[in-house]
Amino acid sequence: MKKIVLIVLDGLGDRPNKILHGRTALQAAYRPNLNHLASLGINGVMHPIKPGIRSGSDTSHLSLLGYDPEEVYTGRGPFEALGLGLEVLPGDIAFRANFGTVDSGGIVMDRRADRISQGTDLLASSLNMNIDGYIFRVKEGVEHRAALVIHGPGLSSAVTDSDPHEVGKKVETVKGVDEAGKRTAELVNRFLEKARNILRNHPVNTERIKNGLKPANEVLLRGAGKAPDLIPFEKKYGMKGACIAGIPMITGLCNMLGMDIIKVKGATGRTDTNYEGKVSALINALKTHDFVILNFKGTDVAGHDGDPILKKSVIERVDRAIAPLKNQLENTAIAITGDHSTPCEMKDHSGDHLPILFVTSGNLRDRVKRFDEISCMEGGLEINSTNVMDYLLQISDRSDKYGA
Amino acid sequence: MKKIVLIVLDGLGDRPNKILHGRTALQAAYRPNLNHLASLGINGVMHPIKPGIRSGSDTSHLSLLGYDPEEVYTGRGPFEALGLGLEVLPGDIAFRANFGTVDSGGIVMDRRADRISQGTDLLASSLNMNIDGYIFRVKEGVEHRAALVIHGPGLSSAVTDSDPHEVGKKVETVKGVDEAGKRTAELVNRFLEKARNILRNHPVNTERIKNGLKPANEVLLRGAGKAPDLIPFEKKYGMKGACIAGIPMITGLCNMLGMDIIKVKGATGRTDTNYEGKVSALINALKTHDFVILNFKGTDVAGHDGDPILKKSVIERVDRAIAPLKNQLENTAIAITGDHSTPCEMKDHSGDHLPILFVTSGNLRDRVKRFDEISCMEGGLEINSTNVMDYLLQISDRSDKYGA
Repeated sequence: MKKIVLIVLDGLGDRPNKILHGRTALQAAYRPNLNHLASLGINGVMHPIKPGIRSGSDTSHLSLLGYDPEEVYTGRGPFEALGLGLEVLPGDIAFRANFGTVDSGGIVMDRRADRISQGTDLLASSLNMNIDGYIFRVKEGVEHRAALVIHGPGLSSAVTDSDPHEVGKKVETVKGVDEAGKRTAELVNRFLEKARNILRNHPVNTERIKNGLKPANEVLLRGAGKAPDLIPFEKKYGMKGACIAGIPMITGLCNMLGMDIIKVKGATGRTDTNYEGKVSALINALKTHDFVILNFKGTDVAGHDGDPILKKSVIERVDRAIAPLKNQLENTAIAITGDHSTPCEMKDHSGDHLPILFVTSGNLRDRVKRFDEISCMEGGLEINSTNVMDYLLQISDRSDKYGA
Repeated sequence: MKKIVLIVLDGLGDRPNKILHGRTALQAAYRPNLNHLASLGINGVMHPIKPGIRSGSDTSHLSLLGYDPEEVYTGRGPFEALGLGLEVLPGDIAFRANFGTVDSGGIVMDRRADRISQGTDLLASSLNMNIDGYIFRVKEGVEHRAALVIHGPGLSSAVTDSDPHEVGKKVETVKGVDEAGKRTAELVNRFLEKARNILRNHPVNTERIKNGLKPANEVLLRGAGKAPDLIPFEKKYGMKGACIAGIPMITGLCNMLGMDIIKVKGATGRTDTNYEGKVSALINALKTHDFVILNFKGTDVAGHDGDPILKKSVIERVDRAIAPLKNQLENTAIAITGDHSTPCEMKDHSGDHLPILFVTSGNLRDRVKRFDEISCMEGGLEINSTNVMDYLLQISDRSDKYGA
């Protein structure tokens, strides 16, 4: 029985870039270590979720970890909250939120409070509260955006928005869509009442009014979503799992699955992360864990920025950092891939398939010698991300036999 | 419309073997006929059930025959009974069983009756009986192991074990887990009562006691399972099917599907089987049947034994034996593959994909010239075993059009 490592270069997949003479960032990168592992392993292409699906980071990571999003995904709310760094646990309810401006009669004057960008951290943290034992936590996002998570027993996402979605309309009272939603709606309305009192007299708003800016005196809630009730990773696989990632959505998801989150000094979730530190932490984590997922976010960041040169350089830094993994193959099964493609020319996620390699001692080898989108098409495998865990389990001698 | 042949080299897939200089048994084998058929056909890799699944022979053969185990598989019990050579029909209930030793108060003294190994055939056959028209059949397995199959209307597998699973505990009365199980439980308890009387005075046990061995005076039952209610093969495909195989699990499964079982002299289910005889029987069966599945078990046996040289030699014998099939391509569509991989280095089933070839006159051809795990990765297909029958039906002009 071997340990398992899953290395995810976020948004790895690319399309031809003019500035790289028609090559993808991965094709253009100097990547001796990735190529060496590919030549020892079995390679192929991986479809994010299934062929042609343009997946987000939340759905593709769920799928890479063997949780089929078509069965478990309950919408963006809980994952956007995770992305802002809020803890979300099974059964929690998450709302997307705006800081907005209302007049004294509760009529929305601006859904974005003049696109407020400063002080939202103070506003958000002032709204953390406990009502009847239910814990309300608010976290600010970019500009006027925020999220609310409610933790407690018997909550339901079957509730309406307080956000009327239009200027000039009155903030709505939240209502239960069905019987189960009524209690949650009542709790949310009490939260909103308290929030108004806090925001009305908040120093950030006093300052804004003094400066002629609209106060952020209302939290407009929309898109209630319940965190999926996922089987804990250890229960599902019988493996103690750890996660090394610089971005809250991934650490939050893994935390929700009951995995240990390993913090690495200098891991930023950006292109300037501590590449070597993350790999050292990975090798160290293998002493105490059966499974480690390691996410490098820089490839996705460069893809969203539309910067193939930066994406290439992130891949080269990953390649240098993973060199020590070559010494782990005797006792470890390793997969290296992305979660989805973020082509630089597109500056967003695409549904293209992307390269994947599996390598461990004694595995089947194909004839692929280079790790990139094109070379891996000649490899032995064409799989969906949802099958990656099954394949890793079987090459690490951890699969139960299905049948007799 | 053509006839269809499905040739299964059981456990065919392999991983690199040191003794074969890093090659698989198939890569190392002299296999001119397999290579010739591959060069005329369309090739690829096949995942057992789906990527990464480490399947048993039961689930993989179900899947190869187009019965998705995720929909129809009801557990090992019925297939283990088939494997011991018991007939199992849809609706039958099968238990795994031990011959054990109990004291006069029904307390388990030994769950394995001193690992009894002789005379279990006599004990088992003495327990075949009919209670109220329900037919009880017992068959011995290796050492103390056995199986019980009950045949009759309205049976349910929702019953508890009689095996307390611990020495020093009393044999349990079997109970219905729900209303449907009550009648079955009552029948099983009556069987157990009669079985005790038979075993108490059985000559095999008298002899054991005389020799200071514990008597096998109780049948400990566990893991009741209902045989899946499978659509008969002929009804599903409109083809009269036949099966040629040396092992009871495969002939039993095909019998359960209503296929004809063709016996071949010298077919042993081992590496010393009558290879040419099986292929002659196949060609003969095509005169009276539309579909023939032919299983060679020797590759799996050699894999479980961890003997790559033996596995290679079984493949070479199969290769020689199938030479006459080259003359059947005008009127027959042929698939050659395994049911799963049994790598010699692992001595058990793995979840690796394995090579498959499809060949008939006029089919699409790819550029593959050799039939092995690696060469076939460059073929045209990558499919799951559950899709093999659909592919065979279409290249033999037997598919119904799906749509207009």
